[in-house]
Amino acid sequence: MSDRVRILGIDPGLRITGFGVIDKVGQKLVYVASGCVKSSDKDSLPERIKTLLEGVAEVIATHQPDEAAVEKVFVNVNPQSTLLLGQARGAAIAALVGAGLPVAEYTALQVKQAVVGHGKAAKEQVSHMVCRLLQLPGEPSADAADALACAIAHAHGGQGLGAISTRGLRVKNGRLV
Amino acid sequence: MSDRVRILGIDPGLRITGFGVIDKVGQKLVYVASGCVKSSDKDSLPERIKTLLEGVAEVIATHQPDEAAVEKVFVNVNPQSTLLLGQARGAAIAALVGAGLPVAEYTALQVKQAVVGHGKAAKEQVSHMVCRLLQLPGEPSADAADALACAIAHAHGGQGLGAISTRGLRVKNGRLV
Repeated sequence: MSDRVRILGIDPGLRITGFGVIDKVGQKLVYVASGCVKSSDKDSLPERIKTLLEGVAEVIATHQPDEAAVEKVFVNVNPQSTLLLGQARGAAIAALVGAGLPVAEYTALQVKQAVVGHGKAAKEQVSHMVCRLLQLPGEPSADAADALACAIAHAHGGQGLGAISTRGLRVKNGRLV
Repeated sequence: MSDRVRILGIDPGLRITGFGVIDKVGQKLVYVASGCVKSSDKDSLPERIKTLLEGVAEVIATHQPDEAAVEKVFVNVNPQSTLLLGQARGAAIAALVGAGLPVAEYTALQVKQAVVGHGKAAKEQVSHMVCRLLQLPGEPSADAADALACAIAHAHGGQGLGAISTRGLRVKNGRLV
């Protein structure tokens, strides 16, 4: 098991933070777990951050990842939303670095390139490819899929599908063929 | 010492996070410590968040506060700055709630009203009143002064100078007389 690297991907958000855990065993990717941590907008911001922290800490305690990957978030058209999202992302990264995990960051473009093969992929394509690459029986929730996609991007070294396409797989129109 | 409440005020920022620790003993405010945690913009965001977390954790470990107060941050004209500030604030709150501290939030307006007596006070006035209220021999750095002001606002229950002005002190033009 020494060549197994367990990666925790995080798609941060104040209302819903998605997480996805995968193992990279040699060049193979194996699904471990995914889901999301939700916080109620009826709670205060510190309470919501506490919920987020505790949720991510529980995922870490349960699955013991070796490395973490977090999606870079966008500046929203609404500055107040940008501020809230920034706070959620800061708290999520705090949970990860607080647990001693090395944290890598990937833009949505890098994640799409890694998972679908090009940066203009629709959300559904990303979700479909996540299912395909991890051989999932069904599609995970949108937030979990984004988190898994981020973990996959990290497993590929953020270098796009090149790393896996050399292993007998080819990408055509965003699908493995 | 049972009526002593130790308050940690935080003025969050990615580059500089100010902190200020005061004791509320009965109705008296006593200065304990202040300073700031700095992170280098040469480091990655996760590294900077780790520095911030560790710095705040060290302040908590050293001074063992009972409660925390964090200044609410503004939406910046630059959306990217807003995002960075949001991330710093989320990480700072994460450090506080992660240590089990109850966290209260105050707007800059509330802080100014609590410390100077009105919301339009200049930064220098806030700093001056912090020195006066805590009987400091000299003015602390700007970030530490803001953090101390936030702790003072919390000590006053966020209710302005009313709470202390009944104890023989009067406020005139933003000064205790």
